[in-house]
Amino acid sequence: MKGNIVVGQSGGPTAVINSSVAGVYVAAKQLGVKKVYGMVHGIQGFLADNLCDLDEYLDNETGVELLKRTPSAFLGSCRFKMPKIEGNEEVYEKVFEIMEKHDIECLFYAGGNDSMDTVKMLSDYAAAHNKPQRFMGVPKTIDNDLPITDHCPGYGSAAKYIATSLKEVIRDNSSFGVEKPTILIAEIMGRNAGWLAAAAALAKDVDCEGVDAVYLPERTFDMDAFMAKVKDLAERKSSVVIAVSEGIKLSDGRYVCELASEGDVAVDAFGHKQMSGTAAYLAQAVAAETGLKTRAIEFSTLQRAATHLASLTDINEAFQVGHDAVIAAEEGKTGMMITLDRNGNDPYQCGTSVYDIHAIANVERTVPDEWITEDGCGLNEGYEKYARPLIMGELQPLFVNGTPRHLVRK
Amino acid sequence: MKGNIVVGQSGGPTAVINSSVAGVYVAAKQLGVKKVYGMVHGIQGFLADNLCDLDEYLDNETGVELLKRTPSAFLGSCRFKMPKIEGNEEVYEKVFEIMEKHDIECLFYAGGNDSMDTVKMLSDYAAAHNKPQRFMGVPKTIDNDLPITDHCPGYGSAAKYIATSLKEVIRDNSSFGVEKPTILIAEIMGRNAGWLAAAAALAKDVDCEGVDAVYLPERTFDMDAFMAKVKDLAERKSSVVIAVSEGIKLSDGRYVCELASEGDVAVDAFGHKQMSGTAAYLAQAVAAETGLKTRAIEFSTLQRAATHLASLTDINEAFQVGHDAVIAAEEGKTGMMITLDRNGNDPYQCGTSVYDIHAIANVERTVPDEWITEDGCGLNEGYEKYARPLIMGELQPLFVNGTPRHLVRK
Repeated sequence: MKGNIVVGQSGGPTAVINSSVAGVYVAAKQLGVKKVYGMVHGIQGFLADNLCDLDEYLDNETGVELLKRTPSAFLGSCRFKMPKIEGNEEVYEKVFEIMEKHDIECLFYAGGNDSMDTVKMLSDYAAAHNKPQRFMGVPKTIDNDLPITDHCPGYGSAAKYIATSLKEVIRDNSSFGVEKPTILIAEIMGRNAGWLAAAAALAKDVDCEGVDAVYLPERTFDMDAFMAKVKDLAERKSSVVIAVSEGIKLSDGRYVCELASEGDVAVDAFGHKQMSGTAAYLAQAVAAETGLKTRAIEFSTLQRAATHLASLTDINEAFQVGHDAVIAAEEGKTGMMITLDRNGNDPYQCGTSVYDIHAIANVERTVPDEWITEDGCGLNEGYEKYARPLIMGELQPLFVNGTPRHLVRK
Repeated sequence: MKGNIVVGQSGGPTAVINSSVAGVYVAAKQLGVKKVYGMVHGIQGFLADNLCDLDEYLDNETGVELLKRTPSAFLGSCRFKMPKIEGNEEVYEKVFEIMEKHDIECLFYAGGNDSMDTVKMLSDYAAAHNKPQRFMGVPKTIDNDLPITDHCPGYGSAAKYIATSLKEVIRDNSSFGVEKPTILIAEIMGRNAGWLAAAAALAKDVDCEGVDAVYLPERTFDMDAFMAKVKDLAERKSSVVIAVSEGIKLSDGRYVCELASEGDVAVDAFGHKQMSGTAAYLAQAVAAETGLKTRAIEFSTLQRAATHLASLTDINEAFQVGHDAVIAAEEGKTGMMITLDRNGNDPYQCGTSVYDIHAIANVERTVPDEWITEDGCGLNEGYEKYARPLIMGELQPLFVNGTPRHLVRK
């Protein structure tokens, strides 16, 4: 590449989205790219010409390693939806103007569905207006709901956090040998896809009985069936731990969390409802119905921010997709996203390829039917085989003063 | 010691309470004690003659190391209050009967205030009835509210979890460069003492701005002052993170969490109110008052169960107090608790001694006034010097299949 490049981060942060920035940086430097810019707060910051020079942070012995161990979006993120091209040409022209100003040949954007839409819109505009600049998508989402790719960087670490935390919480909840169990309900992120909630199934091992049920948005939530299940478990067990996705819905289409907030649910820039309170609502309902002690836990943003417990497989793959996006751009590709392609499970092997962004942007992939147990509240071996390799391995944080050290933008 | 011994765990679990069991076991075996029994579910299980032989789990190469890395109470816990002696002599006689049956010379009980009351009652009964059996308290509580001892095993690990998680959550919350900040309110355990909430102050370091305010139960909570503080922060900052203790109270004596549940708060065997919902209530109040986006996070039982992030200092000290309780009992002591005595901070040094249980049981120590900032919502350097050494060091979990492996009772 003769020109410079820019990399941005968009949407909800993950534990490993910074590894993708590291991957872009390292590959670009290997190719002799002069300047690797970072967008400060994604495309929104880019439109305001808010850039930083990554050399400032990474061109030293420890920068890249520290960046890999830093949670959330190092460059800052945004939730900015590109307007439709027609009638908003000036927004698009602005992007190209800033690219030209800094001699930026290729733009890399790490994000999920909405961010891939940005890559699509920009590459479509470039194609329609014969612009030479290239645009590459770098997959990132704890939700694991991008299509085509086998899985998404960010998912493995969130899944590892969920499985580990649930093992610890199950152990805690079962420490009292009481006659009547405490019913613990853990709420896990995931608006329409149950991938994250499914990771609760990974808590099960020879040293842990696992969760007693997992409720996914892929199945309609039936309050009566749920209550019957809880009562049955409570009669048989001295500890009950149930995982629910924040996105579970009733047959009338309402989210369970909407019952909690009486319909007063905030909406973000993409029109997505802000979720929360599903577990608290269910815990209260169970307590009221059964008189049992209940406890609600929301993993909240901890599940996407816990880099101290990131999966090494995930960190490496996040790095790889960033790295390979640069290689693909160097080969002239544009309007594509890097995908992860699994070649085998025993041993786990995974490569990358590139795929047309049009097939990816705005498409959500949910948990396959065949991996959900017949009663609708569990995952079978198919999921276990798919997900277990993604949580393998650890990268020890650099602990300073008792907590993990992070890299910070000035 | 000629006879056998028994060790029990009581009250809320911690990340390192099993290290104390390991310490008791190792010291006893070094002294040639034949049988080290474990009470299954504390004194309640003991009264039902529910014992296990720790050799079965620990007399092998990895048992002790795995036990140290296992969260919650390996032996099972209980919340059982010994009845007053008068009129309940048969309960006390039962304890001695079971001790005699198994030739148990000394009973070790790891727990907090309520558990130390059990040690006191039993040793008082023994003294009054000329029983030769001995009773030793082993301190354990994430609440850090036992008197006399410099600090309590369990606290350092909970503090490390809180500081680390808050660093990650602060990073997450500040990733969006929005004009109006999200107000994040994190709820931390602690009924009457603010030790755990204070640990939020440890998130601050050269790579983290730290939390914007900490509300402790040591100070009366004023909703108007809180709201004014939030509004001021929201005007100046693009991310606001506030830590609150679950135990904060209004000037009329009501807990803030009681406002959330409209006074309908459950009570445990010791008459303690079950707390929860403080952050959710405040987040809702802030959203209603300011229109800002808010998010509530409760660390819930995660903060006491996260052995994967335990402090090595804490693990070692938990081991030491168990170990030294056995040494003290060997010397003939009874009705005492092991205390941690700090000898210096630079470098941090800490020894142990023994102290009369009567001065400890049922006494709660709160955060000293001189460590709380003048505005009542922060901690000063005095606390930093006290607490920082307690979160230092890590003990890498044994990861198997992507999650930490735990030792399990059959």
